[in-house]
Amino acid sequence: MSGPKGDIETLIALMARLPGLGPRSARRAVLHLLRKRDLLMAPLAETMARTAASTRDCAICGNLTAQEICEICAAPARATGEICVVEDVADLWALEQSGAFRGQYHVLGGTLSPLDAVGPEDLRIPDLVARVTDTRATEVILALPATVDGQTTAHYLADALAVTGVTVSSLAQGVPVGGELDYLDEGTITAALRARRSF
Amino acid sequence: MSGPKGDIETLIALMARLPGLGPRSARRAVLHLLRKRDLLMAPLAETMARTAASTRDCAICGNLTAQEICEICAAPARATGEICVVEDVADLWALEQSGAFRGQYHVLGGTLSPLDAVGPEDLRIPDLVARVTDTRATEVILALPATVDGQTTAHYLADALAVTGVTVSSLAQGVPVGGELDYLDEGTITAALRARRSF
Repeated sequence: MSGPKGDIETLIALMARLPGLGPRSARRAVLHLLRKRDLLMAPLAETMARTAASTRDCAICGNLTAQEICEICAAPARATGEICVVEDVADLWALEQSGAFRGQYHVLGGTLSPLDAVGPEDLRIPDLVARVTDTRATEVILALPATVDGQTTAHYLADALAVTGVTVSSLAQGVPVGGELDYLDEGTITAALRARRSF
Repeated sequence: MSGPKGDIETLIALMARLPGLGPRSARRAVLHLLRKRDLLMAPLAETMARTAASTRDCAICGNLTAQEICEICAAPARATGEICVVEDVADLWALEQSGAFRGQYHVLGGTLSPLDAVGPEDLRIPDLVARVTDTRATEVILALPATVDGQTTAHYLADALAVTGVTVSSLAQGVPVGGELDYLDEGTITAALRARRSF
């Protein structure tokens, strides 16, 4: 009664576990791959296997890397004493693409979430405190999401880092560049108004 | 100034070529894979490589298969003399999932499209005519899309098959099961009315 069989079926099931793909779009994607077996499917499988085998978490910051230590942690020019704390590697990539930060990172791997039973020991928080102490960092910049869990985590980190004496800052909240006021939520407008500066 | 590097960047570029994924969602998918390197990424790469290497087009009908001849063409019970012509393997899978057809298939690999310079020799049309003649098929059921190109192809096939004397039929057009009239287009309503039957 079914269409695809064996490996093809397994492949569709695995693809359907990717974010943004459901069973139907996974099937379409797999059919597309099967039509381009030599030009797309084989190179994709090879690159994926190689990347899965070679990628690891940077021993210092948690960034994804093919080495023991990622390029950012390994670059002497980036040892500025500033450590930017992010939830996830995706956030690190976004900050790197802006080109605005030249220090180092620390990837938490999530945010504190009592409801999901994510506590400090599940994230890389003890590592962060030890790292700040050991490297005598000058500033920790909290670049965490502006969600309840993100801000809870930020407050927790500020408390945990208090013993080290490091300066703790966080990203400014306000009107996004190109943002129009009548499309913004009230929280953002309130935050932007409170943090207003002389022109 | 970029985030991902080397293999990861290549992987994102390859994933972005899948239907339904753009550069942004490909990046999200790859990050998801990198987070589940052992549980998802490695098995996916392995299944993909194995499937790419083992899958081929069925020598008779054009279905995807791991053998020389697909299971449907190889099953004696399905040699009913009925050949259902579809545009694509996805359509074959859809028909198989309905379980309503117990004959064999013929996958064209596209539809005639003068604008895209797709002619009869680019599809498996000569194969179909030869197959109908050689196997003394009793009926060819055209299950082609109800688009201009699909219907052009259907007419071309009916003409090309005329010399073989085979019965040529096509899928009924009408109201989809569960369809509500006020959501249907005029063409479908007109077709359903023309093909009305006694109750």
